Amino acid sequence: MDKLKVSLLGSTGMVGQKMVKMLSNHPFIELTKVSASPAKIGKKYEEAVKWIEGEIPEDVKDMRLVSTEPEDHKDVDVVLSALPNELAEDIELKLVRAGKIVVSNASPYRMDPEVPLINPEINWQHLELLKTQQSKRGWKGLLVKNPNCTAAIMSLPLKPLTELITQRKIIMTTLQAVSGAGYNGLSFMSIYNNIIPYIKGEEEKIPKEVGKMLGQVQDGQILNAKINARVTSIRVPIKVGHMGVINILLDEGDKIDVEEIKRELANFKSLPQEKNLPTAPKKPIIVNEDESRPQPEIDLKIENGMAVSVGRISVENNVLRMVVLGDNLVRGAAGITILTVEVMKELGYI
Amino acid sequence: MDKLKVSLLGSTGMVGQKMVKMLSNHPFIELTKVSASPAKIGKKYEEAVKWIEGEIPEDVKDMRLVSTEPEDHKDVDVVLSALPNELAEDIELKLVRAGKIVVSNASPYRMDPEVPLINPEINWQHLELLKTQQSKRGWKGLLVKNPNCTAAIMSLPLKPLTELITQRKIIMTTLQAVSGAGYNGLSFMSIYNNIIPYIKGEEEKIPKEVGKMLGQVQDGQILNAKINARVTSIRVPIKVGHMGVINILLDEGDKIDVEEIKRELANFKSLPQEKNLPTAPKKPIIVNEDESRPQPEIDLKIENGMAVSVGRISVENNVLRMVVLGDNLVRGAAGITILTVEVMKELGYI
Amino acid sequence: MDKLKVSLLGSTGMVGQKMVKMLSNHPFIELTKVSASPAKIGKKYEEAVKWIEGEIPEDVKDMRLVSTEPEDHKDVDVVLSALPNELAEDIELKLVRAGKIVVSNASPYRMDPEVPLINPEINWQHLELLKTQQSKRGWKGLLVKNPNCTAAIMSLPLKPLTELITQRKIIMTTLQAVSGAGYNGLSFMSIYNNIIPYIKGEEEKIPKEVGKMLGQVQDGQILNAKINARVTSIRVPIKVGHMGVINILLDEGDKIDVEEIKRELANFKSLPQEKNLPTAPKKPIIVNEDESRPQPEIDLKIENGMAVSVGRISVENNVLRMVVLGDNLVRGAAGITILTVEVMKELGYI
Amino acid sequence: MDKLKVSLLGSTGMVGQKMVKMLSNHPFIELTKVSASPAKIGKKYEEAVKWIEGEIPEDVKDMRLVSTEPEDHKDVDVVLSALPNELAEDIELKLVRAGKIVVSNASPYRMDPEVPLINPEINWQHLELLKTQQSKRGWKGLLVKNPNCTAAIMSLPLKPLTELITQRKIIMTTLQAVSGAGYNGLSFMSIYNNIIPYIKGEEEKIPKEVGKMLGQVQDGQILNAKINARVTSIRVPIKVGHMGVINILLDEGDKIDVEEIKRELANFKSLPQEKNLPTAPKKPIIVNEDESRPQPEIDLKIENGMAVSVGRISVENNVLRMVVLGDNLVRGAAGITILTVEVMKELGYI
Repeated sequence: MDKLKVSLLGSTGMVGQKMVKMLSNHPFIELTKVSASPAKIGKKYEEAVKWIEGEIPEDVKDMRLVSTEPEDHKDVDVVLSALPNELAEDIELKLVRAGKIVVSNASPYRMDPEVPLINPEINWQHLELLKTQQSKRGWKGLLVKNPNCTAAIMSLPLKPLTELITQRKIIMTTLQAVSGAGYNGLSFMSIYNNIIPYIKGEEEKIPKEVGKMLGQVQDGQILNAKINARVTSIRVPIKVGHMGVINILLDEGDKIDVEEIKRELANFKSLPQEKNLPTAPKKPIIVNEDESRPQPEIDLKIENGMAVSVGRISVENNVLRMVVLGDNLVRGAAGITILTVEVMKELGYI
Repeated sequence: MDKLKVSLLGSTGMVGQKMVKMLSNHPFIELTKVSASPAKIGKKYEEAVKWIEGEIPEDVKDMRLVSTEPEDHKDVDVVLSALPNELAEDIELKLVRAGKIVVSNASPYRMDPEVPLINPEINWQHLELLKTQQSKRGWKGLLVKNPNCTAAIMSLPLKPLTELITQRKIIMTTLQAVSGAGYNGLSFMSIYNNIIPYIKGEEEKIPKEVGKMLGQVQDGQILNAKINARVTSIRVPIKVGHMGVINILLDEGDKIDVEEIKRELANFKSLPQEKNLPTAPKKPIIVNEDESRPQPEIDLKIENGMAVSVGRISVENNVLRMVVLGDNLVRGAAGITILTVEVMKELGYI
Repeated sequence: MDKLKVSLLGSTGMVGQKMVKMLSNHPFIELTKVSASPAKIGKKYEEAVKWIEGEIPEDVKDMRLVSTEPEDHKDVDVVLSALPNELAEDIELKLVRAGKIVVSNASPYRMDPEVPLINPEINWQHLELLKTQQSKRGWKGLLVKNPNCTAAIMSLPLKPLTELITQRKIIMTTLQAVSGAGYNGLSFMSIYNNIIPYIKGEEEKIPKEVGKMLGQVQDGQILNAKINARVTSIRVPIKVGHMGVINILLDEGDKIDVEEIKRELANFKSLPQEKNLPTAPKKPIIVNEDESRPQPEIDLKIENGMAVSVGRISVENNVLRMVVLGDNLVRGAAGITILTVEVMKELGYI
Repeated sequence: MDKLKVSLLGSTGMVGQKMVKMLSNHPFIELTKVSASPAKIGKKYEEAVKWIEGEIPEDVKDMRLVSTEPEDHKDVDVVLSALPNELAEDIELKLVRAGKIVVSNASPYRMDPEVPLINPEINWQHLELLKTQQSKRGWKGLLVKNPNCTAAIMSLPLKPLTELITQRKIIMTTLQAVSGAGYNGLSFMSIYNNIIPYIKGEEEKIPKEVGKMLGQVQDGQILNAKINARVTSIRVPIKVGHMGVINILLDEGDKIDVEEIKRELANFKSLPQEKNLPTAPKKPIIVNEDESRPQPEIDLKIENGMAVSVGRISVENNVLRMVVLGDNLVRGAAGITILTVEVMKELGYI
């Protein structure tokens, strides 16, 4: 089988580097082009990058960085994007209009009802939108989005509880690692030994994006599920790992069997697991019985960062509470994009 | 005026050191005895302590450590206790039975309905219990308790909202600094770059102790207020500062004027402010309009750690949310004990 | 006595804030003007600053920020500068040419033989250069510099050893806190849980500036002392505090009495101590016998950050070794500038 | 080929866990027994361990922990020891006397001239001592030691410079990670945002152990090389990674070609590389040209932690300086032990 050829926008950034690493030795995806900001074009990858992921894969080291212009991505099957949000809109759209399939981590178009927002285990079915996207939009290519890192992580354990959570109120606090703000997002002096109880835009994005991922396709559009949530997002001084404390307010009559919920979460599987896709975790949701878990320093190492760990599941005072943790750079960004491409290939969209 | 003479149990610990420092140059309290664990008795304070608070006050340096036995505390008016919870019960009771007035930070007896649990600005009136405590208990002395550090901090901004919060459900997440577990409570390897979503006993203590502090005196006992709360307590890798995200679930008909609430909190004053007591903050509750506040590295320095900072107050989706921050070693421990003694002196209980 | 009126350039930065705080309630210096970058001119200090030092002094809160132009500093006696190095040269020179006395922390002109580089306890005598500076330079005002933060700290315990260290080789490793790079100098992701074994320019500056401070005035110029040193400067993940491991290579015949050296360091006093200047530490050099000291979290709190702590002094294998620690923001920056002004006032240079 | 069967003492500790992980899927070593402290004997490994290394290898999970007594290690070929130093002496000696081959990380016997202290690339030839160890000691088994973590790391780049460094004075500062003190060695409160300029015993061990490793075998004993060094060891607040600043004081006449030294270090290879042993790094010494390297967060990921990174190599002021960094848990502990066993197997000592 010929490998799928992909190019990568934003390849020298933190998420870009993760993708480069995860694609090295991939069984059926081959990274053939790396792109970066104008000042780096033409340079060797090795020279242009401040690499932080161990050793640069041999085959990427000497690649010359290309531009984001369509002509530089002619001979690839898919363009992956790890672009910063503020640059993504124009660049990605130009590529899509020029006929490329773009799978992107960046925020623009995430809430567009005709653009699938994919967290593969949750809503691979939404790729169906691609069948009508071109005709509706007049695009020559295709655009697929991945959710915000926190939404990507929190949505996983909410999926098996869809019926419940779309009918109840949710109170959520997220504790988010500094890498979520980008490599240079926060200075050491501002966040070390500190907590900042605010992350711009985050509290609104999470319920919206989760609602879209849990929604239904209708007439070539997504009909979002209604998520009635109040979220508080807090920056904490760790490098990697977003944690969420999710409280679901039960109605008086609700009969919740906590053990049953744990089983449902622990046994949750979806297409990526069934098709045994290379980047798919064997268990997307890991349920912890140890009260002191999940912890970033222990649990992010499991399943190469592609699983989400859940703990402290209990009902008290008519509130179902759980603590969720995931790797914001892998499950929340680089890994979800690659897994999306794997699913698209599996289903014949590429 | 003669100064009040006090002795201090647990004087070499982290909270003990804070008290030693705060009592140095106190206008009417004089620390005349310092006590520590048996192995240190007879040593000079300076030699027995691993001092972490700058310079040891000159007059304490050469004090010889005494035991916790009543005979070693004969000539003091009040015994302050910064003992570890597990040692406090027997030692404090023995002193109370021997006729001492003990004001203590340790957990035993906190929920005893005949023992006042004092956060001065909130419930100095509960000291009234002391009028009947001796006759009811047959003690020769008196026992006064201070709340758990998180309860001490969170209860302050809840006080002006007593009517509301005792009738609504509260969902709370606390992010607690490592010092809350004691100086040697957590190893660097276990909590650096990490989050531990569990603190033993904490989630139960907070609503219980807040409920007692907001309660009423009736027949020489406290009738606790009912707090309907679901709390999740999380350890975060900072040294000092406990933060709470407090969500109050409103009823459909509730009409909440957020600006009015901010004013009530910002203007909150109580006996310690009116009497201008030396350890009292001028403003016990500081309201922040800056969305990124309160932050431990900025806000704990205000009012010498005796005020509580509140921010992100808003109503959305029928939830009143606020973020609360306080210094767990000062407002949550050393300072609250000293302020309690000041109030007792002011009201004639000592 | 009328207070000395000073203005402050760079008043909203990290070092500027320290100066604002240290000048609040100063017995004879009054901060009457605060200056900042063009975009902030005209704004209230309180609104323009991201204040991190507790409470903003009441009298500064409402001051309107002025420019760095001479006409905005007409009615002050001295201009203090906490400007970034790259902006300082032109701005400061313009003020000096316009007749102002400028005392500055910034690097330009530090090594100019006609400009005194003052660490008050070490070389207040160098202020003598001011007597001829105007005639030599044709300036209407005066320019006084303070050393780089690390040089400021390390030079203190080297002063009493001048004779020895100017004749022997020194091998030094410095471990420098992140604040030394400025508030936004290093991102959390780049230095947390990390060490960076390089600080641009630092390894050259330290011996040069120490050599100038230990030099002699001759014909209105400084004749630098020769410092034969090899320095390695390393960035470590702490907020405040620069540490130096100083190894002085002894000659075979050197007879060093370590106890004598400790006494000399511990007893070191200079003009600021003799004149009891308000910002002067009582003991500029604190000698620790405890092998595990000095430590930033313990020792920087002593003497309000104006003393330098020294420990681990010993001779072994014919090497005299000591570990030195100081507060890079106070002794190394804000405090040294204020103390310099105090000395200048005392000696009649202002 | 039958796999070598090994047991592991101290298997639930931090270094023990690293060994368990590194031995999982080893091509010719099979971990068949895990041992731990008495209270854990009989328990399943999975239940007894606080695992921090991702997923526990499947084949170890259910192993029942055994004692350290010889009868529990009968059917293994080699006993690996990750015991704490204070417990190791008696336990290991008992096993050796009972006929076991023990390869140990613990400190007792490290400086014994008849016990090889092996850092494989440096002195695998010292295993020759094993030929006479039994007869000289009357032991039925064999004892092989690995060096202290810092000595293990620093000795690698010193090896190619043996001739020079054994004739010159060395001034060294080490910056050592908290894991070097063990998982519970330092509390968060004591070392976070702090530096402790002292590590008990370390400053003496490093030159002694390096001297032994660079020594020669003579009559069944090691004749140590003379290392004339002055070391200062400092604890810094990072989790993993020991860094050393090594200054070699040159004589006036020394002609050092820095580029030649870089080449020698970069090209250094030894038996483990030649025999392509599974745990051997391809390049034991990595030379960095980037001035800001080596850094723990970047460079420890290379070669799975088995290489040592060197940077900032230069001669100035007649001092040859280099900065060395290695993974204290892998190259400094778990990995060196496993590589030692691989070499012993290769050379027929097992």
